[in-house]
Amino acid sequence: MGRKTVAISLSDIAAMGGSPLFALCSVALPESACIRYARDLYRGMRDIAAEFRVDIVGGNVTSWKHPLSTCSTLIGEIPAKQPITRAGAKTGDAIMVTSELGGSVLGKHLRFTPRVKEALTLNKNYTIHSMIDISDGLTQDLAHLAEPGRLGFLLYEEAIPLSRDAKRLAKKTGRRALEHALSDGEDFELLFCVSRSEAKRILATWRLPTRISLIGEITRSGYRLRKPSGEIVTVEPKGYVHFRK
Amino acid sequence: MGRKTVAISLSDIAAMGGSPLFALCSVALPESACIRYARDLYRGMRDIAAEFRVDIVGGNVTSWKHPLSTCSTLIGEIPAKQPITRAGAKTGDAIMVTSELGGSVLGKHLRFTPRVKEALTLNKNYTIHSMIDISDGLTQDLAHLAEPGRLGFLLYEEAIPLSRDAKRLAKKTGRRALEHALSDGEDFELLFCVSRSEAKRILATWRLPTRISLIGEITRSGYRLRKPSGEIVTVEPKGYVHFRK
Repeated sequence: MGRKTVAISLSDIAAMGGSPLFALCSVALPESACIRYARDLYRGMRDIAAEFRVDIVGGNVTSWKHPLSTCSTLIGEIPAKQPITRAGAKTGDAIMVTSELGGSVLGKHLRFTPRVKEALTLNKNYTIHSMIDISDGLTQDLAHLAEPGRLGFLLYEEAIPLSRDAKRLAKKTGRRALEHALSDGEDFELLFCVSRSEAKRILATWRLPTRISLIGEITRSGYRLRKPSGEIVTVEPKGYVHFRK
Repeated sequence: MGRKTVAISLSDIAAMGGSPLFALCSVALPESACIRYARDLYRGMRDIAAEFRVDIVGGNVTSWKHPLSTCSTLIGEIPAKQPITRAGAKTGDAIMVTSELGGSVLGKHLRFTPRVKEALTLNKNYTIHSMIDISDGLTQDLAHLAEPGRLGFLLYEEAIPLSRDAKRLAKKTGRRALEHALSDGEDFELLFCVSRSEAKRILATWRLPTRISLIGEITRSGYRLRKPSGEIVTVEPKGYVHFRK
């Protein structure tokens, strides 16, 4: 959990093409927690902060009668060009994603690597129209890049990179691995839009070990998926719902 | 609570003689909370932020099955001289405090005004050796300025400014109002050390409406209180204990 609370914010910085500098970490420890619990929690924070050369410069520590609550604030800078926002996708843009999706609940949600290096490389060397990290689920976060009424998307089913955990989880849930890749939250992969020509250039020149896939295109309206058969179906953005009322 | 979560951090900025600029506010709302609850919480944050010309620029909103958890990060700058830290008190320094102490639990802990203006005035116009805001209780926070083994303090009982709420609370608890002023937490007043001559200059030239009192002196060792009779007694730093094990 210590690692995750910092990693989530690192991923947020990455999603804007930024470089993280400082972290502030706050924890409300359960009263029942022992000093070892607090140390282990801090170790998780410290290790991932060190991994990304981030200094933990502040925060707060308290205890309460309820479960652990953590909060991290990361301060970063934009070392190249401009920050990349969620706005900026255009009709005809290619939709790309890092690594593989789905089944994060089996463990990746705690152990994921924030895509800071990948995002900085993208921001420095390519023109990225818009970017987000997948926290709520692919289709739901894609809807943040293609706001209803303004834009739509078409995903290519066979191009969506399924993680091994999406397949493992599918065996347990009886759903398709694709469904997990489309709607599982907390993948913390980068989802971004670029022109078709820039997408080709990225695929041709990408040198980092993290795989990048072209998984669809931005359209004028509607959220759709093209099956391998060529059939096109509507998809309902699904994923983590923050508030039910 | 919205007001308080931002005010606490404003008070932290004040305690270093800084000027607040930006706030990041995070909340984990209880699942049972309605939209009005969230709006009211935000209104509290927004109003105090506006009062101190601070922009709320980020944060996070989520919900969970447990009680409200809030976290704020304030970013500020030091507009004058140096930041004032907890270190720097010297033997013979005068100990001063803003406003009145004790009984905060009767309501001030939610409604207090962070002493940003007072701290900036102190940092700009006077030489402040060390400063802290009283969150754990006067004697306990004073022990942070006069670390055991390095320094001590002598408080003048009759000089300690007792709040009306300290007196009201004393009637309920059967303790003395003085005890409440010495050990109640969440006063969020400024507690600071200056040379004797600077203390005189502050008292002679202070123009803000917030009262400032000279309540004691930094000594070589021991935590003591001088009673009006002249008798000197040892005080045990008391106040809010963050961790009991």
